[in-house]
Amino acid sequence: MINRLEIQTLGPCGIDSPLDSRFFRDESTGVLVDATVGSDARTDPREILEQAGPRSRIFFEPARTRAAIVTCGGLCPGLNDVIRAVTTVLWYRYGVTDIRGLRYGYQGLVSSYNHQPLALTPETVEDIHKSGGTILGSSRGPQDTCEIVDFLVRNEIDILFTIGGDGTQRGSRDIAEEVRKRGLSISVIGIPKTIDNDIALTTRTFGFETAVAMSRDPINGAHNEAKGVNNGIGLVKLMGRQSGFVAAYATLASSDVNLLLVPEVPFTLESVLKFLEKRLKRKSHAVIVVAEGAGQDLAGASGQDASGNTLFGDIGLFLKNAIEEHFRQISEPVSVKYIDPSYIIRSAPASADDSVFCFQLAENAVHAAMSGRTEMVIGFWNGHFVHVPVSEAVASRKKIDPAGALWQSVLDNTGQEL
Amino acid sequence: MINRLEIQTLGPCGIDSPLDSRFFRDESTGVLVDATVGSDARTDPREILEQAGPRSRIFFEPARTRAAIVTCGGLCPGLNDVIRAVTTVLWYRYGVTDIRGLRYGYQGLVSSYNHQPLALTPETVEDIHKSGGTILGSSRGPQDTCEIVDFLVRNEIDILFTIGGDGTQRGSRDIAEEVRKRGLSISVIGIPKTIDNDIALTTRTFGFETAVAMSRDPINGAHNEAKGVNNGIGLVKLMGRQSGFVAAYATLASSDVNLLLVPEVPFTLESVLKFLEKRLKRKSHAVIVVAEGAGQDLAGASGQDASGNTLFGDIGLFLKNAIEEHFRQISEPVSVKYIDPSYIIRSAPASADDSVFCFQLAENAVHAAMSGRTEMVIGFWNGHFVHVPVSEAVASRKKIDPAGALWQSVLDNTGQEL
Amino acid sequence: MINRLEIQTLGPCGIDSPLDSRFFRDESTGVLVDATVGSDARTDPREILEQAGPRSRIFFEPARTRAAIVTCGGLCPGLNDVIRAVTTVLWYRYGVTDIRGLRYGYQGLVSSYNHQPLALTPETVEDIHKSGGTILGSSRGPQDTCEIVDFLVRNEIDILFTIGGDGTQRGSRDIAEEVRKRGLSISVIGIPKTIDNDIALTTRTFGFETAVAMSRDPINGAHNEAKGVNNGIGLVKLMGRQSGFVAAYATLASSDVNLLLVPEVPFTLESVLKFLEKRLKRKSHAVIVVAEGAGQDLAGASGQDASGNTLFGDIGLFLKNAIEEHFRQISEPVSVKYIDPSYIIRSAPASADDSVFCFQLAENAVHAAMSGRTEMVIGFWNGHFVHVPVSEAVASRKKIDPAGALWQSVLDNTGQEL
Amino acid sequence: MINRLEIQTLGPCGIDSPLDSRFFRDESTGVLVDATVGSDARTDPREILEQAGPRSRIFFEPARTRAAIVTCGGLCPGLNDVIRAVTTVLWYRYGVTDIRGLRYGYQGLVSSYNHQPLALTPETVEDIHKSGGTILGSSRGPQDTCEIVDFLVRNEIDILFTIGGDGTQRGSRDIAEEVRKRGLSISVIGIPKTIDNDIALTTRTFGFETAVAMSRDPINGAHNEAKGVNNGIGLVKLMGRQSGFVAAYATLASSDVNLLLVPEVPFTLESVLKFLEKRLKRKSHAVIVVAEGAGQDLAGASGQDASGNTLFGDIGLFLKNAIEEHFRQISEPVSVKYIDPSYIIRSAPASADDSVFCFQLAENAVHAAMSGRTEMVIGFWNGHFVHVPVSEAVASRKKIDPAGALWQSVLDNTGQEL
Repeated sequence: MINRLEIQTLGPCGIDSPLDSRFFRDESTGVLVDATVGSDARTDPREILEQAGPRSRIFFEPARTRAAIVTCGGLCPGLNDVIRAVTTVLWYRYGVTDIRGLRYGYQGLVSSYNHQPLALTPETVEDIHKSGGTILGSSRGPQDTCEIVDFLVRNEIDILFTIGGDGTQRGSRDIAEEVRKRGLSISVIGIPKTIDNDIALTTRTFGFETAVAMSRDPINGAHNEAKGVNNGIGLVKLMGRQSGFVAAYATLASSDVNLLLVPEVPFTLESVLKFLEKRLKRKSHAVIVVAEGAGQDLAGASGQDASGNTLFGDIGLFLKNAIEEHFRQISEPVSVKYIDPSYIIRSAPASADDSVFCFQLAENAVHAAMSGRTEMVIGFWNGHFVHVPVSEAVASRKKIDPAGALWQSVLDNTGQEL
Repeated sequence: MINRLEIQTLGPCGIDSPLDSRFFRDESTGVLVDATVGSDARTDPREILEQAGPRSRIFFEPARTRAAIVTCGGLCPGLNDVIRAVTTVLWYRYGVTDIRGLRYGYQGLVSSYNHQPLALTPETVEDIHKSGGTILGSSRGPQDTCEIVDFLVRNEIDILFTIGGDGTQRGSRDIAEEVRKRGLSISVIGIPKTIDNDIALTTRTFGFETAVAMSRDPINGAHNEAKGVNNGIGLVKLMGRQSGFVAAYATLASSDVNLLLVPEVPFTLESVLKFLEKRLKRKSHAVIVVAEGAGQDLAGASGQDASGNTLFGDIGLFLKNAIEEHFRQISEPVSVKYIDPSYIIRSAPASADDSVFCFQLAENAVHAAMSGRTEMVIGFWNGHFVHVPVSEAVASRKKIDPAGALWQSVLDNTGQEL
Repeated sequence: MINRLEIQTLGPCGIDSPLDSRFFRDESTGVLVDATVGSDARTDPREILEQAGPRSRIFFEPARTRAAIVTCGGLCPGLNDVIRAVTTVLWYRYGVTDIRGLRYGYQGLVSSYNHQPLALTPETVEDIHKSGGTILGSSRGPQDTCEIVDFLVRNEIDILFTIGGDGTQRGSRDIAEEVRKRGLSISVIGIPKTIDNDIALTTRTFGFETAVAMSRDPINGAHNEAKGVNNGIGLVKLMGRQSGFVAAYATLASSDVNLLLVPEVPFTLESVLKFLEKRLKRKSHAVIVVAEGAGQDLAGASGQDASGNTLFGDIGLFLKNAIEEHFRQISEPVSVKYIDPSYIIRSAPASADDSVFCFQLAENAVHAAMSGRTEMVIGFWNGHFVHVPVSEAVASRKKIDPAGALWQSVLDNTGQEL
Repeated sequence: MINRLEIQTLGPCGIDSPLDSRFFRDESTGVLVDATVGSDARTDPREILEQAGPRSRIFFEPARTRAAIVTCGGLCPGLNDVIRAVTTVLWYRYGVTDIRGLRYGYQGLVSSYNHQPLALTPETVEDIHKSGGTILGSSRGPQDTCEIVDFLVRNEIDILFTIGGDGTQRGSRDIAEEVRKRGLSISVIGIPKTIDNDIALTTRTFGFETAVAMSRDPINGAHNEAKGVNNGIGLVKLMGRQSGFVAAYATLASSDVNLLLVPEVPFTLESVLKFLEKRLKRKSHAVIVVAEGAGQDLAGASGQDASGNTLFGDIGLFLKNAIEEHFRQISEPVSVKYIDPSYIIRSAPASADDSVFCFQLAENAVHAAMSGRTEMVIGFWNGHFVHVPVSEAVASRKKIDPAGALWQSVLDNTGQEL
């Protein structure tokens, strides 16, 4: 029996879509959550996701629709691409010309902050995708859900696109629920943003590939630094709070890494030091990549930031100090060059491939919104853009499987035994 | 009923694999060719592909195995990544240390050419992935199958990895069949190489994403050239003989293109000129991207090259001349700047994401070969690496569906009506 | 005795400069044209150029001054940097806020074309330096000097900045002379633009270094293409009509070039073919870089473009065909991959170093104009920005000296004997 | 009267140079230290430097000459370019084929470290210029001069090329003096390496331009981070211990910087905070660039590293904390994103322009050595490569003149008042 992950809608679609009919997506189509068969099939193969795309009939009358976009959390390559594409697809394809860019994350939906929204038009967004950052600004942390819905009502906003991670989408769900409770017809559509690529039910999130690409130069630099002195160690910390995907892909992309440490695969300081002793004896240099969330039992995570994320201890700094201290004690001094390129990476413009992906995410978000869907995020699964109920998207995280193909590739690439 | 695309093997696997058992892939697993359900499902959903990965038992005894690698056809970003990864995975993971790099494509398997093979070791391949091109050299066109198999026998080669496109894989199939006819135990494993990304049953081929990424600067240049004069037209020709994927993705990645022409969507010169008249009146400049195989009815394809590929007329040059002539005649002179970046693109090193992909393709090719599989290519489908019978891989081409989501994205992005 | 290259002025400077006095440049300072002594000194060491920089007293009253900028000829990296810097320095430093960007080269100064100027403000130019091209557009060729001066008078323009090459600066000189003849107080200041770096009395022109930097990838690509087949030849054509500086520096920057051909050093087809025969025998591949103006006796220059530049035959295409034909005749077939990256190079944004240089050129152009100087261009000589009479700047061209240090470096680098 | 900065030689040149005679440089030529005249002339204009280049007669007989190269101190873009060019020019131009790469800085000249030298040939250095770092490795700090000279004698080294900064060149001078004292015929030629570009009597040092170019992305990132939140501050620390050239040029190259802090222009914390208060009120974001050696009275410099360099306090971290604390106290919370890209920058491969410069430095170092010169470094001054007595090169530092044209450009660009 097939279990369809149902998507909430605001009501029946009474309006003919102005789009080209050859592209209309049939309501009945779906994408299997698990496309594997046999013993490796990990979930019920009959669970399916609704396929994204334009519908023949829509809910909102374009000429009377007011849309708004908000970007939340830390920077991520592609934010401006998404803002631009949401704007141009609404404008040129549907004829929605009242589009507001809300400033500084959820603060922009709370009247007391008094941030003035930007009017978004094809002209104002024309070249923004060529720059990193977000023209809307962002902020961390939630705001009061009722105040937000009050703001939406007062400003007569029909569609809200929320671009943000875990926390943002939880907020997004709360807003949609409050909207529902009040019986309003406001669509809330999430576009998941996590440079860590750890959102459930989407193979890939925008910015992730750019982050991997941008990690190559720092790792190459660490490699040069390591070889540049006797017993040199290059140490690079990359994004990855719960999931080490960026660090793992960057490691495979570089092929110069000798040891990768990720949150999903625990390790002891002793094992790292033992590895280094062996490696330096044989090769006189080493390159280590560590995801920021790895080894937090060692680095001392503490407290939380405004978004409710754990404040991590700096595992890179911890390792640098611990390694230097250890080799000083055994009278084999080493030189550790520690590189933390995070801000440079996340503030970069999107790679070509991410720009394509951002455009398609935004297109499908617009289609979903215009058809009156709500409480969902756009995902990408088994080669298709899909609708994912927001509650499913935030229910769990994608992680590296230590017995899966990716981790195997890492071990094949680095030769590490950890 | 499930239809499994069966893979040929050389015989029973009598040897325990030296690899880590936690990564062994169960023989029974497979990946559905079609993961969609509902009216959009395009093929029988019960057709499945064998999943790639290491097997618990292998066919070849590593210490006695001699492997060879050959690269054929035009350059493609990632060739050296694949050569490097095949070498290091064979060497470090399986203990195969007799690895030969055959020179200049299939010429390297014909004794009369007298090209001396390179001995491939982890040292000789250490940094090759940082350069474009192929350290083995390449050549176009087939060679006599019997001579090739004679060469394999005489040189006691157990495994042959063929890295190449359509024509190469057809050759690959012929070699494998001749091997079978002679009752030999030689595994022939293909790694599909097509920058056009048009091989069937693989979502993606290596080099494709790099090509898209490398197309962005030329398109941006064309955009600047177009805006740099009154009635300026920037015209960029990109790869794409039968399939316009590179041109389509590059268009989406740029968002500066006003008209995309691909082989899958026919057009007349008149429609292009009419589009330009409208566009120049409104905006005084235009950017056109054309795939090399588009409009061959206009550009005059003729003859064949050594690989048996049709020799295309230069559609870019044709359009440049036809457009300039037309606007001269209507006394609205335009300036067309024509850019053909093909050699710069295909000779570039792989992007980070392509480097990862090349590593994984190579890993899985090695696993397939060591398990005694043959007459197959490595594919990537619905998120998994798979085994594709070579006959299926060369039976048809992937193309842009003019009623599908990609072409819709193109129209949404360019606003073109063609 | 010292011979000072005198600069024309519009009259006495009656106004105190609003700039910081510590940076005022003394009127008496100058820069020696020749800083060498001994037998290598090439000109009279006592010839001096006036040093550029802000003066304590200025000619134009900022609040009443209207300035205009025009960009002429082909694209060159840095045009937008110069436009931006002229605008911001006029605006913030001098308080000149009436600044017009004239469209499409000298056409923008001829009323009948009816091109509407852009109002330039710090806001409109804020990010333009991050893009190649010119936001003003450009055109080739001169316009009627009297009409131009009529336009300046009618539009009450006090200062005209002309950004362009040889032909543009000749036009600039004619305008300034006509202004003088009519007894007007309009300053005409040239900022030399030649990607070939061939303007006299300036060590360096903007865009040149970017062009060298952007040439490295195509040459690297040609190198990979050449090594990618047996007897492969990579052939790259670079800018350089009369002077081969771009090609020479790109060759030194690459260290992969085996033969460089420039306009200053004549060669025969036979010598090129002989070189290739030797090289292919020894190494099986070769890389050739040719400046577009080299070998025009072979390639067949013919006619003139709108700017009065000779229309060159395509020396790259000529060589490709001649080489392939020759080796076909001696039954040693070769494969020539011909790359012409010109439009990609010249439409790129400025390199970091060129951006710095553009800023400083523009600053000094503004200082010169505000002090009432005219009929001059800004140069850079012996480490200092200088004022060069426009007649001197267009009187001759800088060229590679075949007995000088640069050509020696080329021979040391390529090992070529030509 | 002319004061020539005399260069030491090992004795009369008894051998005809094998080089092309048209490039021989006359011994009598020189380059004026000061090419300006008038009140801005800063030194005695009659002081001259010897011009570099090949001489018609040489001191060392190539077939019997053994040369050695050593790289010292921190990484700098271009080290491998210099190693490669010294090797190829010695080998191909002079016929010197006994060339040793000494490992890990001056440690490689002390027997007890037992580092084995690399044999350098055109093959071993062929592609090294495409990677950052140094294939020889490096180390900090001096070694015993007598032991070094003993090593040179024992290993029969005739020419020693020392690539390094201030401290290295001081060591170089001590070695040359000890050589002279012992009456040996060993040439010691320095190639100055300082990414800070602060060596006296050379306009430019290799790696500097690359550092400026590599600084642009981090500054751009800081700009995006700053604009990405309300009251965001992007803070970038760049190289520059005593001299702020990298930070100043990077600021001009970016045009996004609002405040530049360099060692040459003292400042108080109060002035920085006041600037920020004003700026944030007006614009809600700010970008600060600080050279590492700036504000050391605040950041607390302490102790010395192995090279004798002062161990600087981290002015970036100091400012980040002080700024956040201040604005917290006045209840205007800001978010400071602090970026320190130093290792990424210095480990990068050389830019095109730096590769050219490295080649020419190396060429001229080889010419100088072969002619028997010693106790000198290669400089570049007023457009010519010159010989600078090592004692002059280390006697003082180049610094930004707070009343000079560069600082004026900075103020014009940033608009800052500090």
